[in-house]
Formats: sequence, C-alpha cells, structure tokens
Amino acid sequence: MRVLGVDPGIAITGYGIVDYAGNSFMPVTYGAIRSAADMQPHMRLYKLYNELTDLIVQYRPQCLAVEELFFNRNVRTAMSVGQARGVIILAAAQANLAVYEYTPLQVKQSVVGRGRADKQQVQYMIKIILNLPVIPRPDDVADALAVAVCHINNNSGGLTIK
Amino acid sequence: MRVLGVDPGIAITGYGIVDYAGNSFMPVTYGAIRSAADMQPHMRLYKLYNELTDLIVQYRPQCLAVEELFFNRNVRTAMSVGQARGVIILAAAQANLAVYEYTPLQVKQSVVGRGRADKQQVQYMIKIILNLPVIPRPDDVADALAVAVCHINNNSGGLTIK
Repeated sequence: MRVLGVDPGIAITGYGIVDYAGNSFMPVTYGAIRSAADMQPHMRLYKLYNELTDLIVQYRPQCLAVEELFFNRNVRTAMSVGQARGVIILAAAQANLAVYEYTPLQVKQSVVGRGRADKQQVQYMIKIILNLPVIPRPDDVADALAVAVCHINNNSGGLTIK
Repeated sequence: MRVLGVDPGIAITGYGIVDYAGNSFMPVTYGAIRSAADMQPHMRLYKLYNELTDLIVQYRPQCLAVEELFFNRNVRTAMSVGQARGVIILAAAQANLAVYEYTPLQVKQSVVGRGRADKQQVQYMIKIILNLPVIPRPDDVADALAVAVCHINNNSGGLTIK
C-alpha cells in the first residue's frame, strides 16, 4: 500500500508518501511545496497543483489522505486552506486516487494512541514509526506523514500504537 | 471584453459569460454547474472543474471574476466553498485567464449603486442591464452575472448605475 498524505496550505503544503508492506512502514519521499506571498493567488494554486501532480505521476500512490481542518480556524483561513485543498483533491481525482479524510482526533488517536496528544508527541511518534533520523520540518511535513500513517493504520490491520 | 463571472459552490456553481463592446453589455451564456449530494466530494470537485474548463475552452473569456465570500458564513461552509473556488481559479489559471476578486460590497455598489442593496435589487438590475427576459435562476446564476458586470464596470469605463 502506498499512501500520499497531505497537509494543505497556500504558503506551505506538506506532503509525505509512505509505503506499508510486510507489516512495516517505509517513507518514500516527503517535503513541502511552497509559494511566495508576493505571487498572485491563482498562480500559487497553479504551482501547488502542478507540483503535487508531478509527485503523483512520479511516485504513483494509490490514495490521498488529508486532514479535515474545520477546527480552531477563522473563516478567512478556512477559505484559503479550502482553496489549496480543492486543487490537491482535484489532482488526486484526476489520477484516479481514492481520497480519504481524517479528523485531527483520528490522526492523533492513530499515531499516538490518544486523541488529546499534543503536536510534539505526534511528531516524535512519526520519527519513531518511520525510522527517520530527525523530526521532519516544517511541521506541515510531519503532519502530512501523520495523516498517511493514520490511513495505513485504519486500512491495513497495520501497527496501531495504543 | 469577455468576462466569466462565477459564484462558487459545491452543490451549485453559477456562471455567466458577458461581453462588453460598443458601450453595451451582451450575455453570452449563463447557467449552473450542479453535483448531487450523494457524489463523493472529490468527484464533485472533479465534475465542477471539468465543466468549467469546457466552458472556458468553448467561449474563451479573457478573465475570471469571482466574489470574495468571507462574510456571514461559518468555517465549515467557508472550507467547502473554498474547495470549489480553488478548482475554479485553477481552471482559469491553466487557461491563462486573469483572475479578479470583488467583495459583495463592490458588486452591489457597481450593479445597483448602493453597497447596502438587497439581493432582489441586484437581481432586478442584472435583468435590466443584460436585457434578459426574466431574472436568471437559481440565485447563483444571477450572482455570477453580477460579478461579471461588476468587473466590466470597474475596467471598461462601462456603465455604472449611480
């Protein structure tokens, strides 16, 4: 199973592609798609869409996992994140990927075993589960890997830390 | 000048293409792109993107005008509308259209001459300005035509009702 996890944003979108096979997790690639604040908004969306589409073509994940982000954000932020999410989900749909959404609670529960875990615990567990040398930066990248791991744990009989 | 106005939404996206030449407005085409509530969310975005792209290819507008919708909506609605907006703006960027955003205040001011005009006044004026037989339905279509007229009024020395 190869999963693309994404943490959407206009300035920074984190992504992480994770394989799960033989009861183990393997990070394939991860990083951030960035756009400068002085770019026109529609060109920022265009860049995000193009770079994510390139990743999908290159690594051929089977599905997209993305966090539902309705919480603790204001309306303006939600609109902006929504636009980024829209082009990310479109890129996945065009490549025939299945799309799965998880709440922050589901991600934390799945990665740390506690829905009330803090960000640092999630990041630490991602480093351990994926056997990474350091916690990926920025946070958006660790968050993208976390939602990919969450999807695997919910769909593979995979390791769920409890 | 040929302008594509859009009122984004997941269930219904209104669109209206308006020409402005020789000091007069001409509606080219208008209508609504719909998707059923039982479709998967990513397939709804995919359908919206495809149908809007088809319209752009067929009618070749020079720019997209879209309303900024930060107001009087909750975070969940903003996220959903944002996703629709994202794929609409992407379709325009891919076709090299310029993208313009107007606040509801700017649209009302431009179409009716009063920022506090109600929805019915805007719809009535759209019928008059575009010489339509009836007010276009649903509201999303009239709103899309209104933002197209707003863009023309702000960029052509066109008729501004005051």
